[in-house]
Amino acid sequence: MIDKLIEKIEKTGNPSVAGIDTKLDYLPSNTIEKCSTLKDAANAIIDFNAELLENLYKLVPAVKVQVAYYEMYGTEGMRAFEETIAMAKKLGLSVIADVKRNDIGSTAACYSSAYLGRTKVGNKFFTPFESDFMTVNGYLGIDGIEPFLKDCVERDKGIFVLVKTSNPSSGQIQDKLFENGETLYESMGALVEEWGNSSRGKYGYSDVGAVVGATHPMQAERLREKMPHTFFLVPGYGAQGGKADDLKVCFDKHGRGAIVNSSRGIICAYKSEKYRGMSVGAAAAAAAIDMREDICKAIKK
Amino acid sequence: MIDKLIEKIEKTGNPSVAGIDTKLDYLPSNTIEKCSTLKDAANAIIDFNAELLENLYKLVPAVKVQVAYYEMYGTEGMRAFEETIAMAKKLGLSVIADVKRNDIGSTAACYSSAYLGRTKVGNKFFTPFESDFMTVNGYLGIDGIEPFLKDCVERDKGIFVLVKTSNPSSGQIQDKLFENGETLYESMGALVEEWGNSSRGKYGYSDVGAVVGATHPMQAERLREKMPHTFFLVPGYGAQGGKADDLKVCFDKHGRGAIVNSSRGIICAYKSEKYRGMSVGAAAAAAAIDMREDICKAIKK
Repeated sequence: MIDKLIEKIEKTGNPSVAGIDTKLDYLPSNTIEKCSTLKDAANAIIDFNAELLENLYKLVPAVKVQVAYYEMYGTEGMRAFEETIAMAKKLGLSVIADVKRNDIGSTAACYSSAYLGRTKVGNKFFTPFESDFMTVNGYLGIDGIEPFLKDCVERDKGIFVLVKTSNPSSGQIQDKLFENGETLYESMGALVEEWGNSSRGKYGYSDVGAVVGATHPMQAERLREKMPHTFFLVPGYGAQGGKADDLKVCFDKHGRGAIVNSSRGIICAYKSEKYRGMSVGAAAAAAAIDMREDICKAIKK
Repeated sequence: MIDKLIEKIEKTGNPSVAGIDTKLDYLPSNTIEKCSTLKDAANAIIDFNAELLENLYKLVPAVKVQVAYYEMYGTEGMRAFEETIAMAKKLGLSVIADVKRNDIGSTAACYSSAYLGRTKVGNKFFTPFESDFMTVNGYLGIDGIEPFLKDCVERDKGIFVLVKTSNPSSGQIQDKLFENGETLYESMGALVEEWGNSSRGKYGYSDVGAVVGATHPMQAERLREKMPHTFFLVPGYGAQGGKADDLKVCFDKHGRGAIVNSSRGIICAYKSEKYRGMSVGAAAAAAAIDMREDICKAIKK
């Protein structure tokens, strides 16, 4: 699966992913005013996302859909999540389900069925929230990861394991030093690199990627060196404060090896001064182009 | 919220929780045969859970509902999750949403809205999957935990943070030694104890609990000593191999401080030799009573 993503990145000339992390608050106020139930909210979010996707699908190789923004609207929200994924896939976009799931093996297998694999009912198989990639948390070690790896092989999928997250307090646990001189994020990174050993594609990257925040450039640089076969999903650009010059260390010498996410910067672009007067979709497209230029310029430096 | 749970435990004389982690495979074969869609599966699971809950609600203080077993059936599965929680609450059971969510602060706030807090649409507030407790993963540090703590205070809720999980490979990361001589699970435990500082109830325990597996008694004993104000949710009893004598170290000298989960051992009891011939509900009740006796005997030793 990672090869397909890399090829879509080359085709669009854009190593960035649009985060379709849509909260009702992000919608135009006249739309919000019309909503009074969870179903209304879910439908409004679906329409908003449809406009975003129609304007973005030629510009970005992939979308990341953060499930928390849908779970908060309950079962109706999950319907919006499902429809958003389906619309994105129909438009040819790679879909990253940003769900950060984690559990013991038997339970991780259920999560994997939901997002990467299949669920059997009677003699039929269903793929409820089928995505191309999902994010996972590796705190439980390999037996909580294996079910995902199995589906990566059997169904041509990929995962991104949290290594160094973009939030301010990520260092509280992740930067602590083990007695062997490695930090926790480095140890997690080494495991991720190992878990991907058997799934390397033609560009040298495996189906087991890592989440590495744009907001911690020194750590990202260290990880890039130590994880030569691990593709990075890089959150934290834009609204969270990450700059293109900071995150260029996530890329290899061929300009590959990472994809950078922006959520609010793209989906709420229509609210910003810079894109004033534009529609939701046109502003998102303009912001996606600006982001692409910003990142590509930094990588080429 | 922790005081209410402790009082329910005292009232039922039962420090155990039934894990309603229902997969279609767990249902009687004649029921499975009638299902051919995700909706059928969800409805069959709701009926099965209703029978379990009606037979368990006088025996156990709480249920733990593992969302992965519902997510695998897509939006229909989430409807079954929602209905299961609602049925359990209606019967007066405490509900622990076992979701192990984790993310950066703004996103964690959305998860918290889904399970502990409220979601605003127009002028109305909704509580989609409202539970009394939820499980969370602390890998991102305090700013991924704060939104949950806020809802714990404002809405009288509780969380259980993963500290030492029950799965075989939990040691791969969690048992690694930091340079200060503490393992990762001990460091996580110390943070959890600290995060609960301001929410201690009348029994000395806080609303910020910890997940500590029954399968690692030495580590559990160490944690019980170091985390005197942290209530433990203890998975791993029964099907996963944890024994009552192993997990008694999770309790304090008053026999408080922990609640032990069993999922398959209770909900699939009707399939076991021991409860042969009993209905799903009767077998679950018998297994819940046997578990209560087993644990209470071990604690009193």
